[in-house]
Amino acid sequence: MDPALVAFLDRLADAAGAAILPHFRTPFTVENKAASGFDPVTVADRAAETAMRALIGAAYPGHGILGEEFGAERADADDVWVLDPIDGTRAFISGLPVWGTLIGLVSGGRASLGMMAQPFTGERYAGDGRSAWYRGPGGDRTLATRSCATLEEAALSTTTPALFKGAEAQAYRRVEERVRLVRYGCDCYAYAMVAAGHIDLVVEAGLHPYDIVALIPIIEGAGGIVTSWDGGPATAGGNVVAAGDRRVHEAALEALAG
Amino acid sequence: MDPALVAFLDRLADAAGAAILPHFRTPFTVENKAASGFDPVTVADRAAETAMRALIGAAYPGHGILGEEFGAERADADDVWVLDPIDGTRAFISGLPVWGTLIGLVSGGRASLGMMAQPFTGERYAGDGRSAWYRGPGGDRTLATRSCATLEEAALSTTTPALFKGAEAQAYRRVEERVRLVRYGCDCYAYAMVAAGHIDLVVEAGLHPYDIVALIPIIEGAGGIVTSWDGGPATAGGNVVAAGDRRVHEAALEALAG
Repeated sequence: MDPALVAFLDRLADAAGAAILPHFRTPFTVENKAASGFDPVTVADRAAETAMRALIGAAYPGHGILGEEFGAERADADDVWVLDPIDGTRAFISGLPVWGTLIGLVSGGRASLGMMAQPFTGERYAGDGRSAWYRGPGGDRTLATRSCATLEEAALSTTTPALFKGAEAQAYRRVEERVRLVRYGCDCYAYAMVAAGHIDLVVEAGLHPYDIVALIPIIEGAGGIVTSWDGGPATAGGNVVAAGDRRVHEAALEALAG
Repeated sequence: MDPALVAFLDRLADAAGAAILPHFRTPFTVENKAASGFDPVTVADRAAETAMRALIGAAYPGHGILGEEFGAERADADDVWVLDPIDGTRAFISGLPVWGTLIGLVSGGRASLGMMAQPFTGERYAGDGRSAWYRGPGGDRTLATRSCATLEEAALSTTTPALFKGAEAQAYRRVEERVRLVRYGCDCYAYAMVAAGHIDLVVEAGLHPYDIVALIPIIEGAGGIVTSWDGGPATAGGNVVAAGDRRVHEAALEALAG
């Protein structure tokens, strides 16, 4: 991977963190993006994406951008940045430090580089599909997933069981009822924990590309695997299974298929 | 409140953090405390409680201690320290920074002083029932709950909906289905967010005294209220409602009563 691109991840994360952190844990107005339901967008979210788009436009004017807040530009470029300034907005507005800034790069259709940055804890998880690395409290280190052969040994995370409807809820429950431990409420942070070897499995549904693209090269670089529920590419989002060990990934796909 | 006791909270939190942090996010063996189910206890948990007990024994030999790991000693003393070295062991073993060290003091039967310390993020939330304070990234400040008049406006947190069985599950759902937002998975961290004005309501069941005593003086000191589901004292644990605003607390008690 081009070292300039790797270093550029940090510049983007610096800019996003500087835009977001002053708004974390301050009173603010929640806007309703969706006509129904509760889909908060913050001033911070927009300021961070604006800052990242400006940096990309200046450094890589030929690259495309797909962002959660401001949509797509040059989406047919060979290299497309995929941005979610605050993944985990519900955690963010609840004061919880398990949201993150997602910065991904898709090159020739493949998720090739990604970072999850958590500016409150000062953590960065990044990877390029071949290796993955961490910087934060406790020092810098290489990220590696842990061994997990079966669902019965697995620690599972999903943002909320309410994510799954109808047949998908039944499929999810077939996984959840077999695992050793389940944690809710973490959005992107759970995927970082898979890369770091603390969680074995994440199962989610209804993701957008910007929810997952940045996380794929981190988990793959740490030795794990991310696919759709039917084993295909996860780059487009949708229903996703991420695992640290191919064996538990395979077991999860089988349980989801019923 | 005696300034020496307030300062002593920090000494206990320093000792606990020093014992726990080297074990966070390292591979370790999970012991099974319960005959069935999954109730992890770590080496860190025991080392931290041992360190805190030693400090209390040296500084306040007449005080009692009730700890999650090593039980009660001098439980009939006027002043009893109530300790949970790692509240949120499932979060801890999953690498998530939403566990905490709980240090409470019961004086004459009343929860009079408490701290929630999160050594990974470097945060401390403390209170004495009349005031409450925070130290951490983003600076020192006074803690104050936020206004919330109704369940419909409320952000709710509970560790997991699986906490509630039978009629309690129905009662909990009557609250959850009315609130604006629900977050799972936070244990003590959710109560700290109530004190800090980011979450409005926590509803839980089956707590031990060491899960809640430390949090009562923090939330009360920040302007909130903590009771049992029937409005009585929460010091003994059991089924607990914590709220930042008395109006939403009252509404939650009514919804729980059915």
